[in-house]
Order: sequence, then structure tokens, then C-alpha cells
Amino acid sequence: MKKNVLIIGAGGVAQVVAHKCAQHNDVLGALHIASRTKSKCNDIIASVHEKGAMKVAGTFEAHALDAKDTSAVADLIRKTGSQIVINVGTPYVNMSVLDACIETGVAYMDTAIHEDPAKICETPPWYANYEWKKREACEKAGVTAILGVGFDPGVVNAYARLAEDQYLDTITEIDIVDINAGSHGKYFATNFDPEINFREFTGTVYSWQGGEWRENRMFEVGKEWDLPVVGKQKAYMSGHDEVHSLANRYPKADVRFWMGFGDHYINVFTVLKSIGLLSEQPVTTAEGLEVVPLKVVKACLPDPASLAPGYTGKTCIGDLVKGTKDGKRAEVFIYNVADHKEAFNEVGSQGISYTAGVPPVAAAILIANGSWDVKKMANVEDLDPKPFISLLNRIGLPTRVKDAEGDRAVDFG
Amino acid sequence: MKKNVLIIGAGGVAQVVAHKCAQHNDVLGALHIASRTKSKCNDIIASVHEKGAMKVAGTFEAHALDAKDTSAVADLIRKTGSQIVINVGTPYVNMSVLDACIETGVAYMDTAIHEDPAKICETPPWYANYEWKKREACEKAGVTAILGVGFDPGVVNAYARLAEDQYLDTITEIDIVDINAGSHGKYFATNFDPEINFREFTGTVYSWQGGEWRENRMFEVGKEWDLPVVGKQKAYMSGHDEVHSLANRYPKADVRFWMGFGDHYINVFTVLKSIGLLSEQPVTTAEGLEVVPLKVVKACLPDPASLAPGYTGKTCIGDLVKGTKDGKRAEVFIYNVADHKEAFNEVGSQGISYTAGVPPVAAAILIANGSWDVKKMANVEDLDPKPFISLLNRIGLPTRVKDAEGDRAVDFG
Repeated sequence: MKKNVLIIGAGGVAQVVAHKCAQHNDVLGALHIASRTKSKCNDIIASVHEKGAMKVAGTFEAHALDAKDTSAVADLIRKTGSQIVINVGTPYVNMSVLDACIETGVAYMDTAIHEDPAKICETPPWYANYEWKKREACEKAGVTAILGVGFDPGVVNAYARLAEDQYLDTITEIDIVDINAGSHGKYFATNFDPEINFREFTGTVYSWQGGEWRENRMFEVGKEWDLPVVGKQKAYMSGHDEVHSLANRYPKADVRFWMGFGDHYINVFTVLKSIGLLSEQPVTTAEGLEVVPLKVVKACLPDPASLAPGYTGKTCIGDLVKGTKDGKRAEVFIYNVADHKEAFNEVGSQGISYTAGVPPVAAAILIANGSWDVKKMANVEDLDPKPFISLLNRIGLPTRVKDAEGDRAVDFG
Repeated sequence: MKKNVLIIGAGGVAQVVAHKCAQHNDVLGALHIASRTKSKCNDIIASVHEKGAMKVAGTFEAHALDAKDTSAVADLIRKTGSQIVINVGTPYVNMSVLDACIETGVAYMDTAIHEDPAKICETPPWYANYEWKKREACEKAGVTAILGVGFDPGVVNAYARLAEDQYLDTITEIDIVDINAGSHGKYFATNFDPEINFREFTGTVYSWQGGEWRENRMFEVGKEWDLPVVGKQKAYMSGHDEVHSLANRYPKADVRFWMGFGDHYINVFTVLKSIGLLSEQPVTTAEGLEVVPLKVVKACLPDPASLAPGYTGKTCIGDLVKGTKDGKRAEVFIYNVADHKEAFNEVGSQGISYTAGVPPVAAAILIANGSWDVKKMANVEDLDPKPFISLLNRIGLPTRVKDAEGDRAVDFG
């Protein structure tokens, strides 16, 4: 059944979501996109039409919206007749948008945990701090709410579940590795909003090991990985949403997240952080102007959206899952490789936005066709991974697996 | 004859000037200190009294002053009966203060060339751009104006002249080397106002070689020096005031300035500069606030004055002068070594402020006793270096010389 979609947000990921929804508006329905700045929504819709992305003739409208205002979101849902909300706005609006979906009885999804803008860093248990408090409300309202359905979190959660369902009998370790081996050609840039991007790395790093939360400093634990296509790459243990939800499902397994960083990135980050330029606490200049250093750094850095045209190279993101199979130690690496240039050619965004933006559209299609329309709140690992991975194979994010039997495409026929 | 002194400025160098003037107020006279912020002047006077620095009972008063306002400066000179003005304010006020001295007929000195705050970097011929245009006016008014009489420029100019007078018959090369081998124990800090400090290194590096100005990028030309006390140190060719005035006196010599930088300093500087955080051009944050990145960096960095208590180690600043003596190639290194901790114990400032602040007080004493009261504008190399170096030997900045005959104190008996 066709379901109308409201996209919230107008950044790089929203751009990908918009293009992908347009490419599948035969199974979705009328499309709407809303953000604080309506002109950004108009720009995205214009780029959709430029690429001729709308599969069939249909609606795609832009709206101005303060997504922190639950009743404004609810009003827009009703006005547009939307049945699925894809929230790819800032992590500060999750709860207000989710509340609006519960109020109006429509499906909700996002790609990252809710954050309080006043906090530097959220501490675990992340989902339990905000989203999971609405589990009963979702169930009662019959609302399908799929949390964290980007690539990581999102597809990597489905990969862990696939390892459980398909390749292993027991799971002892889940290492999620996210490598961007691409190059934007700038001295320094972040791939998402620098304010959000740096927040991921300024606090304590949490991992789930030995049945408990472990704490490390950022860049304290590094490891060289040797991955398909991108080769040997250094990655560092980082905190990430899915460590929490996967640790909740696999409490006896060690669950770690590893983010790839080059030495140059770490050096620049370390300099900025050490001087205090990544601080969210305002400083006062000699002239008496009160200003948040991080916002000035953001203003100096390239706009992440501006990187896409020149971005080259590939990303590799996957799960190395270890455990047992038929009583023997076994391991499997389930992964995707994406190409920045191909992403730009298709949807006008770089590969990192692409990997984050395609999965929620796949989830929207699975809600529309009923296979994931579970009428309750779910993290991705709670859902059957097969239809999701099959659909991603067809719409731009193919999954491969590497284990003792070799390196091959994952195909459920 | 005793001469009353007006100090303009209230930073780290002004603190040293105030203490040293107090220590010699028997040969100087009534002391006054003025800055935009009177409380900073009061703090300095309080520290003078704390140390019991006043040699004889006498006046030391604080004043609020906008030194960019020539008539306000002239009024204060008249009101205080000052006969010598030691300008150690920002480099933006040289011309207004000099004009006030010419108007009132009193002696003037400063420690750095005038700068236009609207320019990132002044281009040579530096002194000819501003100060030297007032040569005739000084001579006509019988005003002694000694330009650039800190350590570098200042003492290093006297060292070049001493090489000419005492050690060499012809001069072919003057390399001024400034090494701070001290440690402030912070992740990163500048020894002067970061705004002024970084300006020295963001523009083109000018040197005088082969009878003409040569241009390089900052950190393009580096050389390891092996100096007394501080040992092997890497220094980089930089633009500096005295390269111009010395090139004017010794046009056939190569004149270069070398500033010591550790790899860590260069790395931090490079990161900040590459990202645009050292820019004086305002940027606009996402929230619409217009702000100059450099001013935010300054607000994040430690206040240079706060470094003094923990500063350890030594500085070595000197001139390696090459030429001929009795028809043979000869070279001489004339230098001073200063100690951060000793400087702090004596005057409450670190060694770099100390080396910059003691020389103008020596010049004031030489004006008061008549030996440097030349009734015209002069750079330091235009004046007899012997009384200056002799006095500095006695008041905290001893000079040594190293040549074929060994390494020894410079003493004129």
C-alpha cells in the first residue's frame, strides 16, 4: 500500500533520502520535506527534478518547520497526510518528532539517538535515556517506530542479526568497523555538521566488554584493520549508538565500534580540542563578545555539503562477528563498500551521506509493503534482516560477506 | 639630569619597564604609566611596591589613556611633566604617541614598528612607511626619538653596530637568531598577545639578500643553529623590523632574522592557519554572529602574562656577523642569555618580556644622562653601542661574544 512520506531535515542525508524516495515514489506516495529553512528544502526538491529522479509523476513539496515543536510537526503530518516520517534532522529533535508521530499514529524512523544540546556527550544507556521510554506509548498507539536506521547504526545492526540468523550459533564478539578511505581534497573537513561530528569524539568512549560498560578516552585504543577493497586502515574505538542496543540484545558478547581516522585528522582534532576550540562553552573575546568556539570552527570549516562534487574513493563499513558454529570457533565479516563519486553522480551527495540516507528509505518501503510495519518501537536488530538487506542490494547498498568460505555477495535469492 | 618618565601600555613588557624604571628612579624621576585600562596600570604599580622596587622615594602614578588620541597623549605628557615617553603599547599607537612627543618636545621610544590594524602584515620598507616620515619633524623640534629599542629590534641592532665598531672591518652577513629554549608547561601559548604574535608569521617573510628584498613563505627556510647555553635549536627565517633598518645601514650585507620554533608550535600554528582560525577577517556563525576567528583563538589561549610564574629555561638572542678583519674572513657571535625564572623573581615577568622591557629603560637612562640624548630620530644602530651595552651588563642583560678567540663577556671597563 502506498504511504505518503514526510522527510524532516535538509542536510546531506536528507538530500539522499529525498532522491531515493523520489526513485521509489511508485511504492511510496506523496513526498514532503520540511526544515527550519524552507529554501534548503526547495534546493533539494530542485536537485531531485534536475536528476529526473521521480519514478512516477507525483507530489514533492517543501515546508518550513520547527521540528522541536511537537504540535507543529503533528499539524504538518495531518496537513500533508503523511503516514511515514523519516527524521533526518539534528539529533536534538528526535523526541518532539516521535511524540508527534505517536499523537497522529504514523510511522517514525530516525538514524541517530536523541541528544540534549546542553550536554557535550550523552552517556549510556543511550536509547534508554530517551527513545525507549516511549516503547509502551508506541505499542499502545500501534505506531511503527524504527530507531537508528541509517548505516551505522542501522544496516550494521541488521548485519549482526544476520550473523545470528545465518552464520553463527553463538556470538561472542561484534566489532563494527567504519572506514572512509575517500578523499575530499581539502586541508580538513568533517563529513557531517562539525558540531555534531566533533561531539562524537570529545567525550568518553564507551564499549560493552565482559558484560559491562568500559570507558576509554578517544584515540586511546587503535587497531589496524585489513578490509576488503580499502585495505589496511587504522581505526579507533569510539562510542556509537548501536553499541548500546546490540549489547542489550547480545549481553554476553563484547560489542565495540571502530571509526577510521587518518593521522592528519587526529592531529587537527587534537590541536583544536587541546586549545579549547571544540568547546561548547562560550568564551569572551577581549572586545567583550561572547561566542562558542565550536561554532566559529564550524564557520571556518568547509560546508560538508560542498565536499560532494570533489569526493573520490570508497567507504567500507561492516561487522566482524565472532562466535561458534557447530561447536567450533567461527567468524564472519559482513560489509558494504560504497563509492563517493558514484553516490554524487546518482544523488548529488558524497558516499557517507549516501550510506546513511539510503537505509531509511529502504525501511520506509518495507513499512509501506508491510514487512516491517510492526506497530511498535524497534531497533533494526529486532527486525528480520533479510528483506532489508535484499532491498538494499537492489537500491544501491549491496552487502557482501567474507568468512572461511570466501568473499561473496549476500543474496537471499 | 633626572627626567620624568611616562610609560604607555600595561602588558608584560610594560610590567618589566615599570619595575626597571622604579629600580632606577634615582637617575630617572617621577614615573607615570598609562593605558586604556587604568586598573592594569594600578596592578603593575602594586607589583612594583610589592617587590620594593622603588630605589628612592618618589612618584609612580597610573592613568587611563586612549593612546591613539594624540592630543590626549600630549595633555598627559604636559600634566605629568614627563620628559621621556616609553611606548610599549600595541604597535597601533606608535604614530599618535610620537606625534604627541613632537608636539610637546619630549623624548620618545618604542620597541616595534607601527602597524595599521587593518593590514594583516606590513610590507617593507617598514620604518620608511611610518616612523621615518617624522625624521625632519623630530630634528626641527629637537626631539630624541629612539625607534625599536627592545631586544630585537634594539639590542641586536647595537650588536651589529658593535661588530662594525669593534670586531670587523667589513660586514657581509648579519644573521639575528632568537631562540626561546624555555618552557611554559602549557599545551600551547604565545609569549605576547596572540593577535600580535601570529601577525608576525602569517604574511610573507622578507629578508635582505644580494642587495634586494627576498620573499619566502613562513617556515619555508629553516636552519639548525648551535648556540651557547641553549645548544642545537631549529630556527626559521622570519620578517622582523630590524632587517629593514640594518639593511639600510649595511646595504651590501645580507641581513636575515631567524626565530626559533619547535615542531609542536609549527604544527599548532599550521593547523590553526590552514583552517582559517588565524584570520582577521570576520566569519559568520550559523546563528548569524559575526566574529573574527583570531580573537576567539586569543580568548581560548592562556593569557601570556599568566605564563610567567611557571616559566623555566633560558633564551638566547644574538647576532652572527660575518665579514673581514685585517683582510681575512672573520665572524663573531654577540649574544645575551636570559633566564625565565630569574626574570620572574626580579620583576614578575617571563624572560621574553624581560629582554624586551629592560633595553628601553637603559635607553631612558642614557637619555637622562645625556649620552644618547641626540635630539633627533635614530634607530639603535645609529647610536654608540658601548654605553648601552655597558649599562645593560649592569642592569640585567649581560652581553657575551664568541669568536675565534673564544667565548667571553663583553666589557668596556
